Amino acid sequence: MFGTKHFNICLVGTGNVSQALSSILEEKGHTVSAVYSRQYERAANITRSLYEAEPVTDPDFRAFDPDIVIIAVKDDVIEEVSQSIVVPDDTIVIHTSGVKSFEELRPHSNIGVFYPLQTFLRKNPPDWQNTPFLVESDDPQIVKALLSLGKNIGRSAEEMSSEKRAKLHVAAVFASNFTNHMVRVSKELAQKGKLNFDLLEPLIRQTIENSLSFGPEKAQTGPAKRGDLQTLDKHLESLDFDEGIAEIYKVISQHILDTYNS
Amino acid sequence: MFGTKHFNICLVGTGNVSQALSSILEEKGHTVSAVYSRQYERAANITRSLYEAEPVTDPDFRAFDPDIVIIAVKDDVIEEVSQSIVVPDDTIVIHTSGVKSFEELRPHSNIGVFYPLQTFLRKNPPDWQNTPFLVESDDPQIVKALLSLGKNIGRSAEEMSSEKRAKLHVAAVFASNFTNHMVRVSKELAQKGKLNFDLLEPLIRQTIENSLSFGPEKAQTGPAKRGDLQTLDKHLESLDFDEGIAEIYKVISQHILDTYNS
Repeated sequence: MFGTKHFNICLVGTGNVSQALSSILEEKGHTVSAVYSRQYERAANITRSLYEAEPVTDPDFRAFDPDIVIIAVKDDVIEEVSQSIVVPDDTIVIHTSGVKSFEELRPHSNIGVFYPLQTFLRKNPPDWQNTPFLVESDDPQIVKALLSLGKNIGRSAEEMSSEKRAKLHVAAVFASNFTNHMVRVSKELAQKGKLNFDLLEPLIRQTIENSLSFGPEKAQTGPAKRGDLQTLDKHLESLDFDEGIAEIYKVISQHILDTYNS
Repeated sequence: MFGTKHFNICLVGTGNVSQALSSILEEKGHTVSAVYSRQYERAANITRSLYEAEPVTDPDFRAFDPDIVIIAVKDDVIEEVSQSIVVPDDTIVIHTSGVKSFEELRPHSNIGVFYPLQTFLRKNPPDWQNTPFLVESDDPQIVKALLSLGKNIGRSAEEMSSEKRAKLHVAAVFASNFTNHMVRVSKELAQKGKLNFDLLEPLIRQTIENSLSFGPEKAQTGPAKRGDLQTLDKHLESLDFDEGIAEIYKVISQHILDTYNS
């Protein structure tokens, strides 16, 4: 661990990202001294599995003298939450959002972004060793500190502008949120058809394996890719009991047709 | 291998399914005696890696006296291809489609469906040990033979009606073809943003791991799930350079919103 500075960190927020970060930070030798939530119980739920962190409902962190305050709350309230917290002058205040600029953290002056490109489930700690961090600040010293922290926790850390990070975040929505939602719709259809969803698990694994090994362009299969219009019509008819799902079917199939058959 | 009958099999079609089946059939001790295509070279491309299969361009299989002829061609031409082939009276004729009924194989009389629930890439043999087969016929003896063959090659084999299989097939399209297309769109967005797509690989793996371990309902994350409307608007704006992709973003995000926030 030579060369890695160990930070005194306060966490703001009690969602999946905050919880996941709290464990790995301690595991890597950093100190989590406080976890803030407006609701005491929510903060205490996280601090209970930490060494010495205090649950706090007062956003004044001066007594903890933190090196870094990490704001891990949902995007839309970052600005509001940031304005409510009080820190010593030299504390670095950062957020973990994929889309928001560090400017959201004004009027604090030592500010930055520390975005883990990962999906976080409360019950399942992510594979941090495979998580890249994207960091940003207008202060080179803060960039350096965040790169060091990111490399310490994750697979890698690199500097990235807000503009580029926003593009990465949209790509991540397709790669993660939308793929998972396709699995959900599939499961719903299986259940409505009284089919065992387990039957589909090997197919899903093989698809992702092919997609990552050979590239999604080469891994595409199915009726839309082949231009099997009869099958597409038949599928669409069979989905007429659910307008929302039928709409998804139509839009994605059309896009696959346009992509591969034009 | 006690109890498993070894079949003499002729294959019709030279696509990914036919190619993948040809190897595993031989590996499991069956004989592939002929591979048919209207184009000699396409059949020869497959028979070259088989022991004694002949490439044929004449759809008369009587000289090979096959136990089973497997028609592995795209859905829309199964009926036409089936009508063109000539077989001995007791030969079983089957297709591998997820959507078509065995009735497509008339006027042959010993007919059935042998559907591998898997995605097939030419360059990557599927994990057959994890591939379920769904079989169907109006003749219990044929069902028995196909169950035996399916269990011999794959993870499992079970009987399933055409109606249920069609439902499974639509679910499979969402689980495989659409998930993979989301990865493709993600890659395209990353490339347009001059971002390294490799950054997204751990996210994709973790997403599928969470989805299969905890269920896709619990694994859902992201702005639409959280109801982050500001972020959704910002994303949609950033996609206005590509109408097709923006449309996909809108339809799926709306469906996630409706699913989790109603």
